[in-house]
Amino acid sequence: MINKLYGTSLSLLTDLYQLTMAYGYWKAGKAEQEAVFNLYFRKHPFQGGFTIACGLNSVIDYLNEYKFQKEDLEYIGSLTGSDGKKLFEPGFLTYLESMEFQCSIDAIPEGTVVFPNEPLLRVQGPILQCQLLETPLLNLINFQSLIATKAARMRLVAKNDALLEFGLRRAQGPDGGVTASRAAYIGGFDATSNVLAGKLYDIPVKGTHAHSWVMSFDSELESFETYAEHMPNNVTLLVDTYDSLQGVRNAIKVGHQLRERGYELGGIRLDSGDLAYLSIEARKLLDEAGFEKTGIVASNDLDEHIMDSLKRQGARIGIWGVGTKLITAYDQPALGGVFKLAAIKNPNGEWDYKLKLSEQAIKVSTPGIQQVRRFRDSKGFVSDMIFNTETALIGKSTMIDPYDFTRNRSFFETMPYEDLLVPVFAKGQLIYNLPSIHETRERVKSQLAHFHEGTKRFVNPHTYPVGLEKSLFDLKTDLILKLRADSEAANQN
Amino acid sequence: MINKLYGTSLSLLTDLYQLTMAYGYWKAGKAEQEAVFNLYFRKHPFQGGFTIACGLNSVIDYLNEYKFQKEDLEYIGSLTGSDGKKLFEPGFLTYLESMEFQCSIDAIPEGTVVFPNEPLLRVQGPILQCQLLETPLLNLINFQSLIATKAARMRLVAKNDALLEFGLRRAQGPDGGVTASRAAYIGGFDATSNVLAGKLYDIPVKGTHAHSWVMSFDSELESFETYAEHMPNNVTLLVDTYDSLQGVRNAIKVGHQLRERGYELGGIRLDSGDLAYLSIEARKLLDEAGFEKTGIVASNDLDEHIMDSLKRQGARIGIWGVGTKLITAYDQPALGGVFKLAAIKNPNGEWDYKLKLSEQAIKVSTPGIQQVRRFRDSKGFVSDMIFNTETALIGKSTMIDPYDFTRNRSFFETMPYEDLLVPVFAKGQLIYNLPSIHETRERVKSQLAHFHEGTKRFVNPHTYPVGLEKSLFDLKTDLILKLRADSEAANQN
Repeated sequence: MINKLYGTSLSLLTDLYQLTMAYGYWKAGKAEQEAVFNLYFRKHPFQGGFTIACGLNSVIDYLNEYKFQKEDLEYIGSLTGSDGKKLFEPGFLTYLESMEFQCSIDAIPEGTVVFPNEPLLRVQGPILQCQLLETPLLNLINFQSLIATKAARMRLVAKNDALLEFGLRRAQGPDGGVTASRAAYIGGFDATSNVLAGKLYDIPVKGTHAHSWVMSFDSELESFETYAEHMPNNVTLLVDTYDSLQGVRNAIKVGHQLRERGYELGGIRLDSGDLAYLSIEARKLLDEAGFEKTGIVASNDLDEHIMDSLKRQGARIGIWGVGTKLITAYDQPALGGVFKLAAIKNPNGEWDYKLKLSEQAIKVSTPGIQQVRRFRDSKGFVSDMIFNTETALIGKSTMIDPYDFTRNRSFFETMPYEDLLVPVFAKGQLIYNLPSIHETRERVKSQLAHFHEGTKRFVNPHTYPVGLEKSLFDLKTDLILKLRADSEAANQN
Repeated sequence: MINKLYGTSLSLLTDLYQLTMAYGYWKAGKAEQEAVFNLYFRKHPFQGGFTIACGLNSVIDYLNEYKFQKEDLEYIGSLTGSDGKKLFEPGFLTYLESMEFQCSIDAIPEGTVVFPNEPLLRVQGPILQCQLLETPLLNLINFQSLIATKAARMRLVAKNDALLEFGLRRAQGPDGGVTASRAAYIGGFDATSNVLAGKLYDIPVKGTHAHSWVMSFDSELESFETYAEHMPNNVTLLVDTYDSLQGVRNAIKVGHQLRERGYELGGIRLDSGDLAYLSIEARKLLDEAGFEKTGIVASNDLDEHIMDSLKRQGARIGIWGVGTKLITAYDQPALGGVFKLAAIKNPNGEWDYKLKLSEQAIKVSTPGIQQVRRFRDSKGFVSDMIFNTETALIGKSTMIDPYDFTRNRSFFETMPYEDLLVPVFAKGQLIYNLPSIHETRERVKSQLAHFHEGTKRFVNPHTYPVGLEKSLFDLKTDLILKLRADSEAANQN
């Protein structure tokens, strides 16, 4: 759907510096030099122990129609520099106009549990094209992975309760809402209030009425009766417009009327006040009146921590409506994914491996054409090893903790494993069958079931082991030492 | 632009409960009953003392093409309830199909400084239509006002420094980035890196190169020289790929080469490390080499507080590149705007005023067809009075603090004032000329200049006085007392 945003080509959905670098590569005769970039993040969001990969479907949509249009080129051609003269030569615009997307992309499927430093996507192709894709790929993967992860955390707390996403009004724009609805469903939500998301992505939609419905009548009871009269197969009554427990009593009256007509009161909804106390009292009132099956929906700034607290307090809530805190990933509204050059083919046809130095170890990138091997035993997944696909892994592999080289462990090729990145585009051609949204949602569930509980804990989660295969670790170490030595030498000049 | 999202009609960009309520109004014969809803927020974002209204242009775009399409109606018609039967009768779909937008909308222009409880938009029209608009209007106004406010806060700190928005890769989706670029420009940013936003909204775009450019060459110096050779009128060199101050020395070499060709080194960019220390050292190196006019750009998780701290530390940064913290409004990624029914016309043609009760005073809504009168004196704006347009204000008006009725002040009609809401749609027809984005940006600047410094302070800002005109205050009080009495009586039954 993303390719239809604004009814225009989205090839300009990038940072200007990608275009100025593209121009530089083109002018310097490097435009078609083959390069490899890895897209990864450095830290789990929400101080958690896992992340859910999401957004690949939008990446595919985006790349399927990747083409500079006349109006894009006119705009680029109009841009000027500090001297008022054009930034770009006409020849460059012609190059962009005739450019066909030729990159190969390998990616970890949506719905997979992923960890810091693992390449969620690997892009290989002409450096000019890889460069232009940095911004849109990060935009699409960062946001959707963030929301799918937030939703999965709520699902862990909710267990078998129903989870409804109500966030559109507080989302970061229309697309922020629609796209997040999809990611929330993948992460484990059951339905959304967002009708457009329901239509575009085949997500169940839910909703009944708001305070304004109640206020538009002379009394709450009249409003409930009128609603139930006209929509008896979809009755969840919002009870807190004036007084929540009085609202429950009115809802029970309507419940009796519905029964006489052969329908059931589906639920009541609490949207303010002490949700633990009110849900317990509401449950008593409903049960005493014979409405044991009527659900209690709660909403009002919920997140996984508040849900957890309410459950510990014995709240009798069976259906959770979550808005703001989910749709914006309120406590951490951005995943800091990055896209780093890891190798470039020199004129001799060999890979020159690349990394970016930093004073902070966590910010030093890893070179190589990376793949992730996930090992498992009978109890579940045991660790992930990032390796360079140019290195043949024969017999025993040794994996090293990149932040503590004294820690390592060995794996034998006979141990069961899966390589996580799968081919998606081969030289510009889509060769991947995207699973349905429902299959992806199931994948999250089955993936999470294979990880140790400690990894899924909210407070001080266990760090699932992710390491570098030894030859990749050595390659990285050698490169760092060489670059630091070069830097030292330059400082002394 | 919003009406082009997904290349489809956006009439389904709403919550399902708006449609089920619409159906209820239609079934109950209330669909065309005239109603008034106010859109407002309850608290400034970021613990600040002001908010910038933004998003009206998207609202206009949205409503200009408001129409249920065949495919929308088919989708709505396919939805089912708890018994597996259809939620909506075919007659309702026919009603939606032929429905013409007939609401009147008054709104506070984009770029205006606004305060809690003031109606940013007032929608009057058939209750069914008002109800459907709740979700999209909140979505559009909440997000854009949030970002414009965040940007304005950064502008207050930056004073006359240049501010560049670099956020697209960390934004909440493509539209989250593009729309926020516009709001950031309105709030006071000078340019964006987002090329699509530049093209769609006439915002200046800026950008030069990233680490990957440097890494793709054998040495940093070679990469700088190559860049400067091909794009001499747009040279800001990113110096921290390997070692920031060594990078500055390399940039200076390139600066000399540029001078020989008649160009200037525009700037250097620091993207990691201690920005205070590095900018001071970089400034020394540049000045000693005769590059006093070369700018120092800083980026790396900046927000208004870090910028303020860097300035206090004497950092020599003249250009600030801000990404994540601005584009997502990181420390508070949602504005909690609401849309509340305030009056409904009864069969006698009189207004019945409406409010929602709550145990929290801040959550009790205000009835009335609201307008905001902003009074000023020779020094600037002095206070805002919310009044009911049905009440004639003649002679002296008294304004009451809604949270402390013992506080009040009086105004005479001879005192200069402006009524903030202006007509935008009259019975479905657009009657407002939207100012250009540049005019709106100027409005923010001139508005803020008319408020006391205390209102713009970050820590414990002064609360600008906003009150209810006395007759509106009395109307609200009487309604609350009546509803509480009704509730009390019902509890005793």
